[in-house]
Amino acid sequence: MEFTFMKRTVFFISDGTGITAANLGHSLLTQFESVEFDEVTIPNVNNVAKAEQARARIQEAYAHDQAHPLVFTTLINSEISAIIAKSPGMVFDFFKTFIGPLEEALKVKSSHHVGLTHGLQNYHNYMVRINAVNYALANDDGINHKEFDRADFILVGVSRCGKTPTCLYLALHFGLFAANYPFTEEDIADMQIPKFLRPFQNKLYGLTINAERLASIRQERRPNSKYASLPQCRHEVHEVENLFKREHISYLDTTTLSIEEIAAELVERSGIKRRVY
Amino acid sequence: MEFTFMKRTVFFISDGTGITAANLGHSLLTQFESVEFDEVTIPNVNNVAKAEQARARIQEAYAHDQAHPLVFTTLINSEISAIIAKSPGMVFDFFKTFIGPLEEALKVKSSHHVGLTHGLQNYHNYMVRINAVNYALANDDGINHKEFDRADFILVGVSRCGKTPTCLYLALHFGLFAANYPFTEEDIADMQIPKFLRPFQNKLYGLTINAERLASIRQERRPNSKYASLPQCRHEVHEVENLFKREHISYLDTTTLSIEEIAAELVERSGIKRRVY
Repeated sequence: MEFTFMKRTVFFISDGTGITAANLGHSLLTQFESVEFDEVTIPNVNNVAKAEQARARIQEAYAHDQAHPLVFTTLINSEISAIIAKSPGMVFDFFKTFIGPLEEALKVKSSHHVGLTHGLQNYHNYMVRINAVNYALANDDGINHKEFDRADFILVGVSRCGKTPTCLYLALHFGLFAANYPFTEEDIADMQIPKFLRPFQNKLYGLTINAERLASIRQERRPNSKYASLPQCRHEVHEVENLFKREHISYLDTTTLSIEEIAAELVERSGIKRRVY
Repeated sequence: MEFTFMKRTVFFISDGTGITAANLGHSLLTQFESVEFDEVTIPNVNNVAKAEQARARIQEAYAHDQAHPLVFTTLINSEISAIIAKSPGMVFDFFKTFIGPLEEALKVKSSHHVGLTHGLQNYHNYMVRINAVNYALANDDGINHKEFDRADFILVGVSRCGKTPTCLYLALHFGLFAANYPFTEEDIADMQIPKFLRPFQNKLYGLTINAERLASIRQERRPNSKYASLPQCRHEVHEVENLFKREHISYLDTTTLSIEEIAAELVERSGIKRRVY
């Protein structure tokens, strides 16, 4: 064969969940669109035996790919990172690279404790997130509006524009209380803010979406229904966007946004600080 | 005043959501437990005007704290990062630090496209996550077990041991289909695997929790109920753990684990690959 294009194997190796390593690593790799990556996360590498196992997996990938695997690590323990460093992988060590300069900047030694990132830092943080998730579930999709006074955000918009996943993301990641209310056909027929939402107008954020996109999302849910038809979607989006403008409700178009982008933008606009990291 | 301990202000600055910068930055800062940090995320810094605004906020924090703020960035555009570099912040540039070495390792130039990390990379990925979230919601808490054949994971355990947030996390972050079933009092009285779960035994993962911890979580939900009482919690946990052992159901104790850790551990044990990044 003249030219063999092999996938490049990538390892995210951590003494914790591997989520931080995978996030930054993957995000760097998105800058190399022409390369295909096979991504493998190895969490809980917190002793010598597991480090040797990880090293063996890198070795295997190297033998198979005939190319040096990329290895992104968040490892606190230097004995463990030394074992990974002896592998045939090209190692990008996210902690070691920055801990030294940070120690200098802060004039404090780092604690070198494992598992602080996504560990259960304290019961309080855990309960904040759990309570926020429970709140989001109990106040999803207009099923309940008795607790809207406790909301940080009340998302409004047409059905299937991204409200539910955004509320869950705000709860899980930021510990924020997010309720949502989908405008019903009835609301849209006589488009105004439902009475029970009036007292909370300062917490309302609108989501909207391109009608074609909405139709295709609804199509997956209820194929060939009026609900999923393009004229219906166009009508709803048009009415709801007019309402947002008329009532000066801050809104954003989710058509080309990811859940993370919608959530980050809402937090930025509201000025509300996330409750947990 | 002899000694003034000021909080250190920290900025996470990005042309995207800022989530990657905040994740790695915060995770590095957890290694400095003796310092108190005031963390601020500035997303969408994608033009010169916004970069100058961000620079002004760093300047203000510097004037206020009388200490150099820490600045963690994920910025693709070098004109923008140059503006931030001129601020009085101590800048830790996550992209610039690694993109060069990665280009060398891959022998490919990076694309320098903004917003690829948490952007809506494609409709397919978005739909995988949304469908997984819908699945988790429709198959939460035993409300439905007609779709268990489509599950990647079916989490079982006592009520309030962490099943729901774990399922939502698996859906939102990994695009995995996770259902859950809480053992009811009736199940526990005659502890065995409910019949409708038998065909899916290879997908069952147990969660358990320390009885004292469980009682305090339940106490927040239904204060002073039998449900939240310590003897009841002890009984349920004991019976359910025995079932896990007897039936060889892989299980983990969530008492000291975060949602991320539970999710990462389940993925690791199952060998199932995440569907999205």
